[in-house]
Amino acid sequence: MSRVDTLVRGTLVNVNTGVLEDRAIAIDDGEIVALEERPADRELEAEYVAPGLIDAHVHVESSMVTVAQYGEAMVPRGVTSIVHDPHEIANVLGADGVRAAFDDARQTPLKVRFGVPSSVPASTLQDGGATLDADAVASLLDHELVVALAEVMDLPALVGGDEDLHAKIEAARERDLTVDGHLPRVSGSDLQEAARFLDNDHESITRTEAREKIDLGFRVYLREGSSTKNLADLVGLVDDVPTRRLSLCTDDRDVVDLVENGGVDFAVRKAIDEGVDPVEAVQMATLNTAESYDLPFGRIEPGAPADLVLLEDLESWRVEHVLVDGDIDPTATERDPPSTALSTGTVDFEPVTAADLALAAPASTAERAEVRVIDLVEGIQTGRAEASLPVVDGTIHPAPDEDVLPIAVVERHGTDAGIGRGFVSGLGLERGAIGSTVAHDAHNCVVAGASYDTMARVANHLRDVDGGIAVCEPDGDGAEMSSIPLPVAGLMSDDPLAAVYERFKAVTDRAEALGLDRHGLMTLSFLALEVIPEYRLTNRGLVDVERWDHVDVVIE
Amino acid sequence: MSRVDTLVRGTLVNVNTGVLEDRAIAIDDGEIVALEERPADRELEAEYVAPGLIDAHVHVESSMVTVAQYGEAMVPRGVTSIVHDPHEIANVLGADGVRAAFDDARQTPLKVRFGVPSSVPASTLQDGGATLDADAVASLLDHELVVALAEVMDLPALVGGDEDLHAKIEAARERDLTVDGHLPRVSGSDLQEAARFLDNDHESITRTEAREKIDLGFRVYLREGSSTKNLADLVGLVDDVPTRRLSLCTDDRDVVDLVENGGVDFAVRKAIDEGVDPVEAVQMATLNTAESYDLPFGRIEPGAPADLVLLEDLESWRVEHVLVDGDIDPTATERDPPSTALSTGTVDFEPVTAADLALAAPASTAERAEVRVIDLVEGIQTGRAEASLPVVDGTIHPAPDEDVLPIAVVERHGTDAGIGRGFVSGLGLERGAIGSTVAHDAHNCVVAGASYDTMARVANHLRDVDGGIAVCEPDGDGAEMSSIPLPVAGLMSDDPLAAVYERFKAVTDRAEALGLDRHGLMTLSFLALEVIPEYRLTNRGLVDVERWDHVDVVIE
Repeated sequence: MSRVDTLVRGTLVNVNTGVLEDRAIAIDDGEIVALEERPADRELEAEYVAPGLIDAHVHVESSMVTVAQYGEAMVPRGVTSIVHDPHEIANVLGADGVRAAFDDARQTPLKVRFGVPSSVPASTLQDGGATLDADAVASLLDHELVVALAEVMDLPALVGGDEDLHAKIEAARERDLTVDGHLPRVSGSDLQEAARFLDNDHESITRTEAREKIDLGFRVYLREGSSTKNLADLVGLVDDVPTRRLSLCTDDRDVVDLVENGGVDFAVRKAIDEGVDPVEAVQMATLNTAESYDLPFGRIEPGAPADLVLLEDLESWRVEHVLVDGDIDPTATERDPPSTALSTGTVDFEPVTAADLALAAPASTAERAEVRVIDLVEGIQTGRAEASLPVVDGTIHPAPDEDVLPIAVVERHGTDAGIGRGFVSGLGLERGAIGSTVAHDAHNCVVAGASYDTMARVANHLRDVDGGIAVCEPDGDGAEMSSIPLPVAGLMSDDPLAAVYERFKAVTDRAEALGLDRHGLMTLSFLALEVIPEYRLTNRGLVDVERWDHVDVVIE
Repeated sequence: MSRVDTLVRGTLVNVNTGVLEDRAIAIDDGEIVALEERPADRELEAEYVAPGLIDAHVHVESSMVTVAQYGEAMVPRGVTSIVHDPHEIANVLGADGVRAAFDDARQTPLKVRFGVPSSVPASTLQDGGATLDADAVASLLDHELVVALAEVMDLPALVGGDEDLHAKIEAARERDLTVDGHLPRVSGSDLQEAARFLDNDHESITRTEAREKIDLGFRVYLREGSSTKNLADLVGLVDDVPTRRLSLCTDDRDVVDLVENGGVDFAVRKAIDEGVDPVEAVQMATLNTAESYDLPFGRIEPGAPADLVLLEDLESWRVEHVLVDGDIDPTATERDPPSTALSTGTVDFEPVTAADLALAAPASTAERAEVRVIDLVEGIQTGRAEASLPVVDGTIHPAPDEDVLPIAVVERHGTDAGIGRGFVSGLGLERGAIGSTVAHDAHNCVVAGASYDTMARVANHLRDVDGGIAVCEPDGDGAEMSSIPLPVAGLMSDDPLAAVYERFKAVTDRAEALGLDRHGLMTLSFLALEVIPEYRLTNRGLVDVERWDHVDVVIE
């Protein structure tokens, strides 16, 4: 019996058979070589041994750290692989951004596989940093870490037979890659048509909606993100259909959730809490997802890489050790330095003044102006509202007392594509200003506040620190600035997740002290996303999403 | 709502959800475009609609007809795809034979996918027609119809790290292809080691054996062949493990079984008879196998090809119509003529005489000789026996009264590699002779009989008709010959399966009249297979399989 380097004993979560069984797992040179006793240089014991978890769909940028830092934080939780859609960095830097993410992925033991963003830019109603056309997508699909064309979002283009989009899908099919869907509230004939081209979906919020998709052959991913938590509503599906068609994903999970609760490991724990059989819950974050993307891991069997989670307890997912390729301390292993520098220097606009951000009244002699207002309804949904605002010296002024604040979107990709101006209601901010270069999907610089002057200070600060999130409190003649620098594409920090967490909490606390809703900074990041109803603001002005066009802010 | 060419209504066997549900299936241009009502040029109704079945592992040569003729017969039964391992033609013609099978597959609506034979020749104890080394295998693996490296049979080479075999496996892995196993009675550490390299197995005969394989990550195929029928013994697995890891296959199914009972459709029916949930039985011959080989069919969902079986009844699998790519009469559709001629002209040896086949006594003056005898035990298993036979004019004569007959294996691949001579007991033949150029795996010309003269007649007849199976009854000075010509590689006929069936029955009846056991012609085909214990005869002489070497026939 040949000697191996590591032997792990414990109750194996056998995702192939769906049962728990006492087993020895013999590991040599990073590979599981047998599920039986072998003489070993090192022996480990654990109550339970599960395959390393796979997050079926995640945008790492939502964590505000690089892929390498994300891995550093997630691997110790038992997440050993993710399917990452670098949609955000692609909107800033295009194919170069995606390639930077590929490179970043080499800096972590986390097995990062990629979906290539299919829908960059989200629309032509805003000036983003880049476009990924079919040729660019096809070229990226050839990369060895790519397993999918990532979430196809443009339903009209999909069902309408848009040539560019279908060329991207065809390029993925030619390469035997998975095509991910993105089908919120899509049903009926549109869904039937989408089913012809897409393999999976993670946007269901009701069990009925998810079931309709499964009936049509979709794999359904149960999402447990930060702003969208669908697991509890969907988990009953395990009683309706074979769980082999279900996976778990996080999609967008913020730094607070990641640090306090975890990533897809939290989804596994929650599924078990909700009554899912623990082995099935693990299958939904391992084997099922491996099958969805034809990944060679996500199971414990001879020939598989030794990606193992050693647990004190399965239901509470108390992790003792995580092995990646047999390495018992994977995050401590030195890696080759990155071949390219981090993608900094992406926040590029001329310094702005209060006057740049202010909206002029159509008739400078009027005393008041009637304006359209982006009204925050719930979460990141907005409604259409109107307000009557004072005009001073030809400029429309905000009404912080009535929670009607100015908002501006400054194009920041160095193309001088202008500033959009509008008003927002519902942020709760009573004074000061907030801003962010994380502003889905074009990631321009969005600022809102109680005064144009403070807003300009915030925008210019974000410019100076090369991107991030900032809160500014007026202080006499000056102002106190509090910010999280996110210099990587204006979206991410290369600091550890825990450090960004501390900083984010401090900034959030400051913002809350100014009256901002607890989730206001996150909400701000979505106010420029021109594909979610009803009103949004882009650097080209106010958008009425249902009309899919710009509208004037001032009602004449 | 766009018009489609075909609409099928019925109870859909939804293999994705595992449920039966009433549905309309809209088909256009060969593709399932929706699972809902659409205006259609043609409407069909059926009680049940299932996906076309997939046979997970089959050697078409065992049917004695070409791939095209096999398809012609099987498609109307609802078998719309097979994973074919052209192992037999490869032993005769090497890579050219495999390429001929690829070409043959274009002549049928049956979706033939291929495993590339991994173990040609079976040994060096016999002279076959060809060798497939790692380079040849790698080149074949590149063909678009190939989905696997077919059953890896040489366990010592596998666990011993044989370079050539592992190069073949590596070549398959590089191409993301499946690697099929062949692990009869393999367990314990050998199985653990095999599990590192192989993905599935179809050789289990007991539930315990199969379960051990599933625990180690193998997909297990339940086989229902002609000489090996394992389904009834294994079907209880559905209570032990998720059926997603199980598939159905036929491996080797002869013309009688195919015509009288069917192919993998019979296995589905039998699984249902044995108590398997009908939907799960269908899953084991559709979705599960599609997942095993990453096939784009085997399910009814938008985007999939319209390969459908319209059934009057699910449990009895009474087929009304079969659609392949939406074609309601697929076997009637004209296809392009083959680009290469059929592989005939493969039976090449000098005409033999009785003296060529007779075994000389070591001492020509002796009256009797003690000889080793291949003793037919059960099925195709043999034991070691001995006999004392009369010597006449220096030649050892048979003893038909005691059921000890001469057997000879004539190398027939044109290399003048000689004739092996021996004795066999248990065929039951009282007079005449039988012969075949179907003689696993080297497929030399094997003949056995009550007299050397009639044996020579049979061998020469098979030479004249370019291969086949023959029975010869002595008739005064002459002889009456009855045969099934199999001119394609000496293994297959290009006649319809039904015609070969009639011919096979007639020949079998003739042989039975001469005293041959009902399955004697099949048994004869395995007497030259030098890898099955205990004694076998090759063109190089008698083989003691356990010793993995030749032994003398005459005991001195």
